[in-house]
Amino acid sequence: MGASTLRVGMIGYAFMGQAHSAAWREVNPVYADLPVTVEMTALCGRSRDKVEAAARQYGWSRYETDWRAIVAADDIDIVDIGTPGHTHAEIAVAALRAGKHVLCEKPLANSVAEAEAMAKAAAEAPGLTAMCGFTYRRVPAVTFLRHLVQSGRFGRIRHVRAQYLQDWLVDPDAPWTWRLARAKAGSGALGDIGSHIVDLVNYVTEQHVTRVVGTTRTFVAERPLADDDGTGEVDVDDAVSFLADLDGGAMATFEATRMATGRKNALRLEINGLKGSAVFDLERPNELDFHDTDVATVEQGFRRILVTEKSHPYFDVWWPPGHTIGYQQPFTHQAHDFLRSIIDGVPASPSFADGLRVQRVLDAVEKSAASGGWVEVGEEKKRRGRRGRKG
Amino acid sequence: MGASTLRVGMIGYAFMGQAHSAAWREVNPVYADLPVTVEMTALCGRSRDKVEAAARQYGWSRYETDWRAIVAADDIDIVDIGTPGHTHAEIAVAALRAGKHVLCEKPLANSVAEAEAMAKAAAEAPGLTAMCGFTYRRVPAVTFLRHLVQSGRFGRIRHVRAQYLQDWLVDPDAPWTWRLARAKAGSGALGDIGSHIVDLVNYVTEQHVTRVVGTTRTFVAERPLADDDGTGEVDVDDAVSFLADLDGGAMATFEATRMATGRKNALRLEINGLKGSAVFDLERPNELDFHDTDVATVEQGFRRILVTEKSHPYFDVWWPPGHTIGYQQPFTHQAHDFLRSIIDGVPASPSFADGLRVQRVLDAVEKSAASGGWVEVGEEKKRRGRRGRKG
Amino acid sequence: MGASTLRVGMIGYAFMGQAHSAAWREVNPVYADLPVTVEMTALCGRSRDKVEAAARQYGWSRYETDWRAIVAADDIDIVDIGTPGHTHAEIAVAALRAGKHVLCEKPLANSVAEAEAMAKAAAEAPGLTAMCGFTYRRVPAVTFLRHLVQSGRFGRIRHVRAQYLQDWLVDPDAPWTWRLARAKAGSGALGDIGSHIVDLVNYVTEQHVTRVVGTTRTFVAERPLADDDGTGEVDVDDAVSFLADLDGGAMATFEATRMATGRKNALRLEINGLKGSAVFDLERPNELDFHDTDVATVEQGFRRILVTEKSHPYFDVWWPPGHTIGYQQPFTHQAHDFLRSIIDGVPASPSFADGLRVQRVLDAVEKSAASGGWVEVGEEKKRRGRRGRKG
Amino acid sequence: MGASTLRVGMIGYAFMGQAHSAAWREVNPVYADLPVTVEMTALCGRSRDKVEAAARQYGWSRYETDWRAIVAADDIDIVDIGTPGHTHAEIAVAALRAGKHVLCEKPLANSVAEAEAMAKAAAEAPGLTAMCGFTYRRVPAVTFLRHLVQSGRFGRIRHVRAQYLQDWLVDPDAPWTWRLARAKAGSGALGDIGSHIVDLVNYVTEQHVTRVVGTTRTFVAERPLADDDGTGEVDVDDAVSFLADLDGGAMATFEATRMATGRKNALRLEINGLKGSAVFDLERPNELDFHDTDVATVEQGFRRILVTEKSHPYFDVWWPPGHTIGYQQPFTHQAHDFLRSIIDGVPASPSFADGLRVQRVLDAVEKSAASGGWVEVGEEKKRRGRRGRKG
Repeated sequence: MGASTLRVGMIGYAFMGQAHSAAWREVNPVYADLPVTVEMTALCGRSRDKVEAAARQYGWSRYETDWRAIVAADDIDIVDIGTPGHTHAEIAVAALRAGKHVLCEKPLANSVAEAEAMAKAAAEAPGLTAMCGFTYRRVPAVTFLRHLVQSGRFGRIRHVRAQYLQDWLVDPDAPWTWRLARAKAGSGALGDIGSHIVDLVNYVTEQHVTRVVGTTRTFVAERPLADDDGTGEVDVDDAVSFLADLDGGAMATFEATRMATGRKNALRLEINGLKGSAVFDLERPNELDFHDTDVATVEQGFRRILVTEKSHPYFDVWWPPGHTIGYQQPFTHQAHDFLRSIIDGVPASPSFADGLRVQRVLDAVEKSAASGGWVEVGEEKKRRGRRGRKG
Repeated sequence: MGASTLRVGMIGYAFMGQAHSAAWREVNPVYADLPVTVEMTALCGRSRDKVEAAARQYGWSRYETDWRAIVAADDIDIVDIGTPGHTHAEIAVAALRAGKHVLCEKPLANSVAEAEAMAKAAAEAPGLTAMCGFTYRRVPAVTFLRHLVQSGRFGRIRHVRAQYLQDWLVDPDAPWTWRLARAKAGSGALGDIGSHIVDLVNYVTEQHVTRVVGTTRTFVAERPLADDDGTGEVDVDDAVSFLADLDGGAMATFEATRMATGRKNALRLEINGLKGSAVFDLERPNELDFHDTDVATVEQGFRRILVTEKSHPYFDVWWPPGHTIGYQQPFTHQAHDFLRSIIDGVPASPSFADGLRVQRVLDAVEKSAASGGWVEVGEEKKRRGRRGRKG
Repeated sequence: MGASTLRVGMIGYAFMGQAHSAAWREVNPVYADLPVTVEMTALCGRSRDKVEAAARQYGWSRYETDWRAIVAADDIDIVDIGTPGHTHAEIAVAALRAGKHVLCEKPLANSVAEAEAMAKAAAEAPGLTAMCGFTYRRVPAVTFLRHLVQSGRFGRIRHVRAQYLQDWLVDPDAPWTWRLARAKAGSGALGDIGSHIVDLVNYVTEQHVTRVVGTTRTFVAERPLADDDGTGEVDVDDAVSFLADLDGGAMATFEATRMATGRKNALRLEINGLKGSAVFDLERPNELDFHDTDVATVEQGFRRILVTEKSHPYFDVWWPPGHTIGYQQPFTHQAHDFLRSIIDGVPASPSFADGLRVQRVLDAVEKSAASGGWVEVGEEKKRRGRRGRKG
Repeated sequence: MGASTLRVGMIGYAFMGQAHSAAWREVNPVYADLPVTVEMTALCGRSRDKVEAAARQYGWSRYETDWRAIVAADDIDIVDIGTPGHTHAEIAVAALRAGKHVLCEKPLANSVAEAEAMAKAAAEAPGLTAMCGFTYRRVPAVTFLRHLVQSGRFGRIRHVRAQYLQDWLVDPDAPWTWRLARAKAGSGALGDIGSHIVDLVNYVTEQHVTRVVGTTRTFVAERPLADDDGTGEVDVDDAVSFLADLDGGAMATFEATRMATGRKNALRLEINGLKGSAVFDLERPNELDFHDTDVATVEQGFRRILVTEKSHPYFDVWWPPGHTIGYQQPFTHQAHDFLRSIIDGVPASPSFADGLRVQRVLDAVEKSAASGGWVEVGEEKKRRGRRGRKG
């Protein structure tokens, strides 16, 4: 990649727009050794007034009101998609076909079919980077946890507990949003936050979900509209829980909900292996609790590691030990790794294929919730079969 | 009840024998106002040498080697059963028919049929106290949690998470014990520790499990015998997890395992209600974390309540605030409440009927693990029907 | 020691009387291998009605109303002193001279002169055990911490932070008690709870306080009498804080207060050494946080050790891992070790000399609070000199 | 202030340079409503190569190698000083006299005399904003704690415990830096991190230190030079602890050290008042533990408040609840408030007078460490006298 500049067009300027904009602004100042300069070329949104204001605030050079203008622009190399899930497939496929690198927010899509189309488009554009925005892979404590697993510090993993608990829908009068409409969001807690824990378990353990049994619940079926006298229908799940088998032999439990009073952003992961255990909680993102059976029995215990050393993943660009980072910084790591993927040709992680894998699990959970029984995550079975033949 | 003395015969002298003996010794010194004196009349075990030594150490006046001698003895009012589960039904039914009060360790039995026979025998002896030893109901923090629920501090409960995590079977070379034999133990983690969390959820929330879907796993199929060159077969579960619906509308997840490296006695309960949430962990038994939405939003948080005030349940007989109690003391509470039930005629809690209810849930979990689908907890459905007609 | 029975007479039946009675009752059932049987011969208190009731409740064979009767009794081998501090010296010296073993509650006395007399009496009775009741030495986590220090796991200790925080005097209307009268209690927070942390630092680190500078404060000068319309004067400290040098080179800070709102029994100890650090909090008595620099930097952190393994100090007589003990159990450990000292002739720990050492520190703190400057703990200086000559 | 642009010149590009640069870059994108645009005009450092590289990386338009060029520049409105302490006074006074607004890193200076000169220069330039960079005032949890104090939620404060514990000098072979030279740093842990807790206690409680007694220690007297075979002398304190009286009646203990193994950035503050208590730890910067005696006794406990609500201080510009911020963000808050002070004419907080107040406490601590007795913080006494006359 000879170019010394990479030009970004971003679609969507809400919550994710704020976080991604900061990442694009900060990636060069934070990473001195990046051999490329980011240009924040264009921001796209449907409301002209709002997108204009957002572009000015966040530092984008111009704005557009039709995503097709972004995809078609000659002066854009990267398309960053932060819109609701139902639009991902169309935009991402078009962008890839137009020769753009694509960073797409999670979940990758609203259906397996859409995600398959996206993964196919990515596979057909091997020179382009296509990444799915499961940003939490780049929280240093999470990345470090994966390193510990890869180093064999847990031995055979027996149990995985994954929860993503929020409480912003506890109040029955909390207003309706597009996140509660199946047509836009695809699903509720399942896709919005459950997708994160499905991806994280995969990423951290390198084990894949092979079958699930689960249940979903919509506790509040309609909610007041924010700008209106009326009410909006909630046709997605408020909460989901499911059991899963992982292909490495572990039992797993998953739970995602927006009705867990007092839990604000509690993505919690616990892993129990023969040789060690670990606990992570996103409400304390700079910490990892690690139990190591290699030390003498009388000295064993969960140790609270502050994952803020220069030698921890991603922390060499930050502060002295004990000086923490927050929610935004992993987006900067993601921007960096995305650029590195383009520059150095290393595979994107998570790839669109990884995003599709998550989508298949979400789909199996919904099928199980409907049927009441265990549902195989089809492709994993096949993949496992192939792997088995090789091994 | 005119008698100023109640005479106890206890069957079994291992782990539970140690804990129960301390309770019978201490109940009078601790409870000054008990209008009855406990006599520790006889301890029973099959090994003469061992039971003789145990009786001497723990303060029992005499020993027996056949439980029938306890049940038949004229000088015994209370039979305390601490033997493996497969013997509970026969002993308890015989004791009740012989006119003895019965305190029986948990789980109540190894099968629904046995538990039904026990509950029937208890129902047919209305003048006798028959209690099942789910001792954790009497950890002050747990009792207090139930009070908070009963006072409406949680509002409608949406989520229950119950885990009982231990790690004493992680090592594949940990020796075989009777707890790993279905013939004696009935089941593995499910009955041994899973039963505790099923009872606690029922006790704390006053909601009942109506259906379950679950899975069990035996990770290590045979283990070395402690006193032998050979190995013993493990035909019970090492771990179990299941989803459940509660009749008050809550979603529940349950998990019990002896393979959770680093977790020694982590009975953890989390409840999320519309108005509040709470967390309990038996590894910190004097604490309850409580989140209360009645305080201003900016001041909300999980508050760590030290449940050690004189005004907390059971604590009036203990120490000044902050001076903790441990694992043994709830057995003393249990002995006290058992005696109070006899003296004052108040119903035993948990009753044999409560123990049967737990047994039905365990049974449904095993059926679901076999069938792969949701299983109704039959009697709860009927009970619910009746309740529905009344309400 | 040939006797198979040791007969105890205890003076005082309030808070400490309750805890000690339980220890004497339980020491034989808990310690199967003790080659001696304890008899709870007599309880002594000044109010006939109250001591009679207490003796009956707690299991003492008879009662007395004059401590001299205990000291003079032929059928008593051990005198256990749980009265206010101003009476310790007279009773303990008399008991030792009468040939009794003595267990005396902390602080050893109300003045250095009294404590010296007691230590002298103990030194003059080498065949008798004289122990001071700093019970927290026998909380397993504390004992284990000392083991870690002795094993060199901390290297040179740089910092010690010791706090004992309670809040039962925060309310200005909390009633007056004898603990607020210098004539009975000697001092306030300083002697009552400050003495504990002075002893613990000495015990855990094996370093001695050589000089101090401190300040005391009485926030509420008079308080309502419990049974009266009037008020009682508070002529002791509500709170004390002091800096100290330890003879091993560490800097230490100490703080004791009964005015720390929300802190119920927070005896907190933090040690920072070149190679490790540790934290203990009596509100979580079964835990020790230990930071070990021997592990790789990226894996370092404070590990929460549950000090409940059979291989931890004192825990072999208790429960399986993770099953906790509370405030009472260290009194049982103390009774056991006291008996072992008598039986096996091992030195008592803490000895009266240890109690005297604490008293000298308390005295130096009061002198410093009065003078406003650093005060040497005189005898430590001499001792150090002697030690220096040997080394 | 009519100008729509404010132009910054920053002196120093190391640790603080990184943090401040990010703040200047981000303050406009984060604060949409700021009626002024920041221009990062010039960065200054003595090494041409390094400052050129830093300017490029961090986004400064040009660089200088002499601070006088910054102070003299016509196109600079704000001088941001991040150099070692011995240079603060000269630069800041010159900048103020040149009509520049000044943001100066902490501690304000290396001596009371320097700090007085700076405060005087600020007082003589009433139209200019002069702020001292005690950034932690702007950690939302800290600011919120002050709000709670101001709202009367603590009642009369009895105790303050303030610690700042780091461990980067534990290793005797950790290399020498300018922070260990009195000529540049003024003092060691005392000025570098002790100054933070002195300021925070003042800020949070609105009480001032009136007298102190303390001690300092240099554990390692010389250290290897980073780029050299030789060693450098350490002539500042490695650790300091001191007791203090506050003018509102509270007792306070302070401790600052770089030798607390395992403590990375543990700025810990505990406040005990008649009605409430609170604990803050910078290693968990998004949390505040608050104990409130207004709730029923049985429900009291330290509640862990996640200070991440839109209604918490500074958080309205950030993320949804539970999505944390890290070490950098308070620098952005500081930049914003600094600009607001210029624009709106509100007083700077902390002002140079606040910085001087801290300096006087540091000075009294050093005098006390030398003299061994209590030292009055002179000006506070006078101030108190004046206040007393008014009240």
